[in-house]
Amino acid sequence: MLIAIQGEIGSFHHMAACAWYGKDTEILPCKTFQDVFEAIKTGKADTAIVAIENSLFGSINEVYDLLLSYRIPIVGEIPLRVQQCLIGRHSATVQTITHVYSHPVALAQCSDYLASQLPNAERSERYDTAESVAYVMNLDDHSAAIASPLAAKLYKAKIIQADIQNHDMNFTRFLVLDAHANIKNPNKSSLILQTTHEAGALYRALGIFAKANANLTKLQSRPIKGKVWKYMFYIDVACSQHTLEACTIELQNQGCDVINLGSYKKATSEL
Amino acid sequence: MLIAIQGEIGSFHHMAACAWYGKDTEILPCKTFQDVFEAIKTGKADTAIVAIENSLFGSINEVYDLLLSYRIPIVGEIPLRVQQCLIGRHSATVQTITHVYSHPVALAQCSDYLASQLPNAERSERYDTAESVAYVMNLDDHSAAIASPLAAKLYKAKIIQADIQNHDMNFTRFLVLDAHANIKNPNKSSLILQTTHEAGALYRALGIFAKANANLTKLQSRPIKGKVWKYMFYIDVACSQHTLEACTIELQNQGCDVINLGSYKKATSEL
Repeated sequence: MLIAIQGEIGSFHHMAACAWYGKDTEILPCKTFQDVFEAIKTGKADTAIVAIENSLFGSINEVYDLLLSYRIPIVGEIPLRVQQCLIGRHSATVQTITHVYSHPVALAQCSDYLASQLPNAERSERYDTAESVAYVMNLDDHSAAIASPLAAKLYKAKIIQADIQNHDMNFTRFLVLDAHANIKNPNKSSLILQTTHEAGALYRALGIFAKANANLTKLQSRPIKGKVWKYMFYIDVACSQHTLEACTIELQNQGCDVINLGSYKKATSEL
Repeated sequence: MLIAIQGEIGSFHHMAACAWYGKDTEILPCKTFQDVFEAIKTGKADTAIVAIENSLFGSINEVYDLLLSYRIPIVGEIPLRVQQCLIGRHSATVQTITHVYSHPVALAQCSDYLASQLPNAERSERYDTAESVAYVMNLDDHSAAIASPLAAKLYKAKIIQADIQNHDMNFTRFLVLDAHANIKNPNKSSLILQTTHEAGALYRALGIFAKANANLTKLQSRPIKGKVWKYMFYIDVACSQHTLEACTIELQNQGCDVINLGSYKKATSEL
C-alpha cells in the first residue's frame, strides 16, 4: 500500500502516516497538497495523509478547498504533537549557525527561539521540514534546519537543540483520505454546509445539530468562489450515522446544501 | 497624516488608502503586517490600512491574530476589486517572458493564465505586488511582475496583459485602523466571541444576534493558543450600537467573553 503525503520522508506527515498505518508503510512524497490529491485521483497512491489544522496557527485553507474539489472521502483523523528541533551537521552548534531553513509554518512556530537565540541568523523558507534537513546536510556548519527528531534520525543529522517551538501545546491534526475504505460505526463526520444566506440562516442550521445533541467540534468558514462575501461552512460534528442522516434531511428541508466529506471514528489519543 | 500599509507605493493596500483618504495621502510602506501594527503602536504612523479577506482566498489569518494582540480600533472597511496585470519593461511581450514575480496570493489568483499562457515560466514569490514591478524594471525582457494597473503607471512599466486573474469576482476587503477616530452612528462592528466550549454554546450565542435581528456578515474561527482544539470566533455584525450593547450584555450573561475590535460604518460601494 502506497501512502501519498505532502513533504518528504521524516516530515510530520510521515510521522502521522506511521502513527496510522505502522512503521513499514510505503510513502509517496509529494511537493504540494494538490499533488497529494492528484496522486489519489489518478491511482498513483492508495491513500493519503493531509494536515488540516494546527492548534496554534489554525486551519490549512488550501486543504479545505481541495477536499471540496476532489471529494476523496475522509476515513480517519490523527492528532499529533509537534515538537520542533534545530538540526544540523554533527560539527554545528548554536554558535556556528548563521542561516536557518524550514517550512514557513515551522519557522513561525519557533519565532521566539530564533529571536532570542539566533537573532542575526538569516531565515529561508523551504517546502518541507525534512527536506530542509537533507538540504543543510549538504551545506556547512553555518546552516541549520527546523524539523522533527525523526528527520534528524533519518538524515543522520545532529539535534542541536530540541523542543524549540514557541508553545508546548502545539498539535497538528491530520486527515486520512481513502476512496475505498469501509468504516464501521463512525461517530464523527466532516460536512460542508451552505445556508440560504438569509439573516439567521446559520443560527437555524446549528439549531438542528444542537437539538440532536450532535456536538460541533469545528466550524470553519470559507468563501464561495464567485459569490463575493458569501461563505460556506466546514463543520465537524460528533454523532452517530443515524443522527447525521436525520440532521441532513432537516437541513435540506431548510434549504441548506449539505456535502458529507466523510464519516469516521473520532480520534481518542493525544487530545 | 501618515498611513501605514503592507507593501509599497502602487500596491493594492495603497489603492485602498487612496480610496479612503484621497490621492494625496502620505504612505508609510511596511514589509510585514506586524510592522504595520507596530508603526501605529509606536506612533510612527497615524492610521493603517490592512487587508482582512479576499473573496476567492478567504481570511488573512495573520491579520485576525494581530487585531487581537494589538487592539487598534477598526474604524472603517474598504472593499476593492482586484484586477491583476502582467507587467514588464516596454520591450517585453508574453513571448519574451521566462520568469514571473509577485506576491504569492497574486500568483495564485492568476494560476489559470500562467498555466495556459506561460506554462514554462518560472515563478518566484516576493513580498509585494508593486515591489515586484520595481524589481523587474531593473531586470530584462524575460521578467514580468503581476500587479495592479496603478503599479504599472507609477513605475513607468508596460501592461503586457490586463485582467489575468482566474476569476472576475475578485475582491479584497481592507480595514482602516485608527486609535483616535470618532465614528458617529456606526452600523457594523467586529467582535471576538469566546463561548463556554459546552455543546451548543455557539448556537445559543448566535441566537442572541438572531433574536435582535442583527445580521452576521462574517464568522471566522481561530484557534485559542494553548487550548488545543478550542476556538474563538471573529464575528462581523451589522446593527446599531444600542443593539450591540444589549447583545453584549446577554452574551456575557451566558458566560461568553466579548471583545469589540471596533464599530464603524458598513461599506456601501463595490459590494
